[in-house]
Amino acid sequence: MEILKVSSTSNPKSVAGALAAVIREEGRAELQAIGAGAVNQATKAIAISRGYVAPNGMDLIMIPAFTEIEIDDEERTAIKFVIEPRY
Amino acid sequence: MEILKVSSTSNPKSVAGALAAVIREEGRAELQAIGAGAVNQATKAIAISRGYVAPNGMDLIMIPAFTEIEIDDEERTAIKFVIEPRY
Repeated sequence: MEILKVSSTSNPKSVAGALAAVIREEGRAELQAIGAGAVNQATKAIAISRGYVAPNGMDLIMIPAFTEIEIDDEERTAIKFVIEPRY
Repeated sequence: MEILKVSSTSNPKSVAGALAAVIREEGRAELQAIGAGAVNQATKAIAISRGYVAPNGMDLIMIPAFTEIEIDDEERTAIKFVIEPRY
C-alpha cells in the first residue's frame, strides 16, 4: 500500500483529498509524519477527510504507532497513522 | 467526562498512563490539544497507551476533530481526540 508522506508544509486539505481517495479505492490508508509540524498537519488532514467521506456514510478512525525510518543514513522516529473506515 | 488537556511540554508517558486509566474506568477518553507541539505530544501519548492496554486485549483507536475553545476571551481552534477501545 502506498504511504502518504506528510510534512510540516503539507496542505491539510490536499492531504485530506488524497487520503479520502486512497480509502475509497483501497479500503484503508497510511500516513507518515516526522516531527511535530508534520504530525499536526497529518492530524488536521484526517479530521478534514472525515468530512469528505461522511456523505458516503463512512466514519474514519486513526491508529497511531511509532516507526523507525532511515533518512540520509540516519535513523529517525516517525509516526505512522493507519486510517480505516468504521461503518 | 473529564477532558485531558495536553500541552507541548506534557510528558507523553504520563499522559499515556492517565489515558489508560480513564479508558479502563470510563470506557473512553478525550484529549484536547492546541498547537502543533501539543498535538504531537497527544499523538505520542496515544501510541504509548496502546502498549499499556494491549495486555488487556484492548486496541485503541482515535478520532480527531476540530473544536473551538475560548482562552482569555479569544477563540482558539483546538484538536479534540476521542479515544476508544476496539476489541
